[in-house]
Amino acid sequence: MSQTQISLGAFLMGSGHHLAAWRHPLSPPGALDLGHFRRLAQTAERGLFDAIFFADNLALLGSNELAAQTTHGEVFDPLVLLASLASVTERIGLISTVSTSFNDPYLLARRFATLDHLSGGRAGWNLVTSATDQEAQNFGLEQHFEHADRYARAEEFIDVARGLWDSFADDAFLRDKPGGRYFAPEKLRTLAHHGDYYRVRGPLNQPRSPQGHPVLVQAGSSEPGKALAARTAEVVFTAQQTLEDARAFYTDLKGRLAAHGREADELKIMPGISPVIGRTQSEAEDLQAELQGLIEPQLGLALLSGMAGGLDLSQFPLDGPLPELPPSNAMKSRQALFVELARRENLTLRQLYLRAAGARGHCTLVGAPRQIADHLEAWFSAGAADGFNIMPPLLPHGLDSFVELVVPELQKRGLYRREYRGSTLREHLGLRRPERR
Amino acid sequence: MSQTQISLGAFLMGSGHHLAAWRHPLSPPGALDLGHFRRLAQTAERGLFDAIFFADNLALLGSNELAAQTTHGEVFDPLVLLASLASVTERIGLISTVSTSFNDPYLLARRFATLDHLSGGRAGWNLVTSATDQEAQNFGLEQHFEHADRYARAEEFIDVARGLWDSFADDAFLRDKPGGRYFAPEKLRTLAHHGDYYRVRGPLNQPRSPQGHPVLVQAGSSEPGKALAARTAEVVFTAQQTLEDARAFYTDLKGRLAAHGREADELKIMPGISPVIGRTQSEAEDLQAELQGLIEPQLGLALLSGMAGGLDLSQFPLDGPLPELPPSNAMKSRQALFVELARRENLTLRQLYLRAAGARGHCTLVGAPRQIADHLEAWFSAGAADGFNIMPPLLPHGLDSFVELVVPELQKRGLYRREYRGSTLREHLGLRRPERR
Repeated sequence: MSQTQISLGAFLMGSGHHLAAWRHPLSPPGALDLGHFRRLAQTAERGLFDAIFFADNLALLGSNELAAQTTHGEVFDPLVLLASLASVTERIGLISTVSTSFNDPYLLARRFATLDHLSGGRAGWNLVTSATDQEAQNFGLEQHFEHADRYARAEEFIDVARGLWDSFADDAFLRDKPGGRYFAPEKLRTLAHHGDYYRVRGPLNQPRSPQGHPVLVQAGSSEPGKALAARTAEVVFTAQQTLEDARAFYTDLKGRLAAHGREADELKIMPGISPVIGRTQSEAEDLQAELQGLIEPQLGLALLSGMAGGLDLSQFPLDGPLPELPPSNAMKSRQALFVELARRENLTLRQLYLRAAGARGHCTLVGAPRQIADHLEAWFSAGAADGFNIMPPLLPHGLDSFVELVVPELQKRGLYRREYRGSTLREHLGLRRPERR
Repeated sequence: MSQTQISLGAFLMGSGHHLAAWRHPLSPPGALDLGHFRRLAQTAERGLFDAIFFADNLALLGSNELAAQTTHGEVFDPLVLLASLASVTERIGLISTVSTSFNDPYLLARRFATLDHLSGGRAGWNLVTSATDQEAQNFGLEQHFEHADRYARAEEFIDVARGLWDSFADDAFLRDKPGGRYFAPEKLRTLAHHGDYYRVRGPLNQPRSPQGHPVLVQAGSSEPGKALAARTAEVVFTAQQTLEDARAFYTDLKGRLAAHGREADELKIMPGISPVIGRTQSEAEDLQAELQGLIEPQLGLALLSGMAGGLDLSQFPLDGPLPELPPSNAMKSRQALFVELARRENLTLRQLYLRAAGARGHCTLVGAPRQIADHLEAWFSAGAADGFNIMPPLLPHGLDSFVELVVPELQKRGLYRREYRGSTLREHLGLRRPERR
C-alpha cells in the first residue's frame, strides 16, 4: 500500500450502469440533457472524487431490436461532454474514453491538451482500442483490426501523442509584447514521427498543458493490454470479482513497472465497483431486486452473447450452464472473466446475465454504507487496489447515496480526503507531472 | 433583400484578428484561458449576436521564426472550446470550423450532434477543406490533396454526415419505462454508405439533435467551393473588399440555389468585416495606426508569402509592386483576392501587407460607430449581404466597442434585434429545421 488514502473515480452513464436502470422510476426521463450531467458532476465534486469518467462506443452495438431496450442509442461524445462540464466544476478531474483505433493522433492530442488547458489541468484520457466489428464498420473497415494489431497501433499512437504534447518546452511562451516574441522558437521541437502506422510531422500548435500530459488511463487486462499499461498507463481501471483475483492482478501489474524504470506508485490501480446502496442491507437488497426484475431474459442473454464474441446464446436453456465459447477477437479479457465466473460458481445462463447486467463484469456490492466501506477498505488495505472507479447502478440516486452515506464513512476511517488539496487531476491522484522528453 | 434585419456573427481569435494585436497593451497576457473566452462569449450574447465563430489551423503554419511573432502556436480545438462555452451561455449560436480533409465523418457527426444536444440547438459547423501541406503532414501525407479532390471529398463527407444525423426519426425515442422500449427500432435507419472516399455503416448512436442538423457554414469562394455551398451551405462567410464585388458574389451564389431546389433565403451570406472602432473617427484612426505600427516588415511579408502559395516575397523590394505569383494548390480564392486588390489599387508590398494584417483579406473599416453602421446598412440594403461576420481586430476591446457602440446604432435604425426571439441558431438566422430524408 503506497498511499494512505483511497482514490475515487465516478464512472457515469446516463441512467446508471445497470442495464435496466432507465426503466426504474427514479431514473431521468432522458439522459441527453446537460443539466442532468451537470448535476452529476457537481455531486461527484461535492463528494471530493478524483475524477468523473465516461465510457464510449463508436456504434450502436448488437441488434437494433435489443439495442432498443437499452440506452445505447443515446451516447454523447464524451470529450465534448466533459468540455461542457469543465465550465461548471472547479476541481474534479475529467476522464474521457477515446479509442486509438479510430482516431487520429494529431487531433486527439490537441483535443486533450485543449481540455487540459480549459480545465486548469483536470484532463484524463482513458485509452481504449475498441472491440467490435460494428465499430470498425463505421470507419471504412469490414472487420476490426486483430487484437495484437490494435495494441501495436495503440503503442505507437500514445508515443506520437506524448511527442506532440512535448512540442513546446514549459517555458517556451514568452508573450513579450515589446520584443515581439510570442514564443521562443528554440524551445519548440518538430516531432517528425515516421512509424509503422502513423506519420506525423508536428509540432502541436498549442503550449504544453498544465499537467504536461493528461493523465493516461487504461482498462485492458489482456496480455498486450497489461504490457501497454505497464509502459504508459498512470491509472488502470479493471474488472475484478474477488479480492484474490484483484490482488493477483495488482501484484502482477505493479511488478511489471520496474522493467520500464517506473516506481510502483506511478500507476494507480482502480477496480470498478458497482454499489447498490441502501440505508440498511434490506433496503439495498430491495433496490437490487427491483433493478434485476426489470431485465427481460432476451436482453440478458443478448448481453452475454455480446460478451461471448457474438455466439447466440438464446439457443441454450436459460437455466442451464454456459456452453463452450468460440475464440473471439473482441474483448478477450472480459470474456475470460465471465467464463471463469460461470465455471467457478456453477452459474446458469440466467444467473450469469443477472450478474453481468449490473456492471458488465465489475464487482457489484449490495449493502448498507458500512458494508460498502468495509469492502473498499479491505481491498485497499490488502494491496488489491489504490482506489476504485465507482459505477452507480442507478443515477442520480446511486451517486447521491454514495456521496451522502459512504463518503462520510470512509472519511471517518481516515481513508478519504476531507477537502481537495491540489487543483489538478495529477495532484488529486498523487501522480507527478511528466518532464518534457 | 429577403430579411429585414441583419444577422451577426462574432468571429473570435484570442487576442483579436489583427496580426499584431497580441502586442497591444489592451490585449490579454495569454489567450489560453477559459475565463477570457467566457467573457467574450457572454459579451457577444449580451450584444445579441446570432453566433460566435472560431477558425482553426491543423499545424503551426509558416516558419517557426515567423510563427513565433504571432499567436499561431496557441490554438485551441475550437469544438472543445465551444462545448465549454455552451455551459456559460444561453442563447448564442456556437460555430466551429472543422476540416473535412483530416477528420472522420462518424466521429465528426457525433461531435456536432453532441454539441447541438448539449447547447439546446445552438451548434454550427464551418466546413473547410484545409489549404496547406504543413497541415497534411500532420496526417500522414507529404502533400495535401489537390484542390478539386479536397472538394470532392467534402461533398461526400457532408452527405455522410447528414445521413448519420438522420439515423433516427425525430420521434424515435419513446423512453417507455413500463413497455421496456427506449426507442422504436423501426424508426432507425442504417446508412450503409459506400462511396469513393468513405465507407460508413451507421447508424449514429445518438438521437436526432434539436436542430436536426447543425447549421452548415462554408467559406470557400473558389468554383468548387461555391458549388458545394450552393448545394449544402446555409451560411456563407466570405471575404469581400468592395460593395460591387460583394454584390456580385451575393447575386452569383444566390442564383445557384434554384438548381438545387433551394430558395434564396435558405442560404445567408455574411461577409467578414473587421471594424476598428473609436468614439470618433480620429480615435479609430489612432488605434489603427497603433496596431499597424506593431507589425515588423518581415512578418508582414511572411503573411503575404503564405497567401502567395509559399513564394518568398522577401527577395522583392518592400516598396515595389507585387510580383507575378506561381499557381498554387492552396487557398485559390484568397490568393486571387489579394492579387486583384494589389493590382486595382496599385499597392506596394508594404501597403499590401498592412491591408492584409488586419483581417487577412476581409474588409477593414476604421471609424466611429455611425460610420461602421452606415457601411453595414449600405451593404445589407444593396443586396450584398444578409449579415456580417464581425472580426474584432483587438480583443476584448473590439467586441466591447461593437456591442456598446455599434449595436445600439443598428437597433436605432431598426436593422437589428432588441432581444432574442428564438432559442436555436437556426431560429436566430431564420433557417428552417431540415426534415429527415
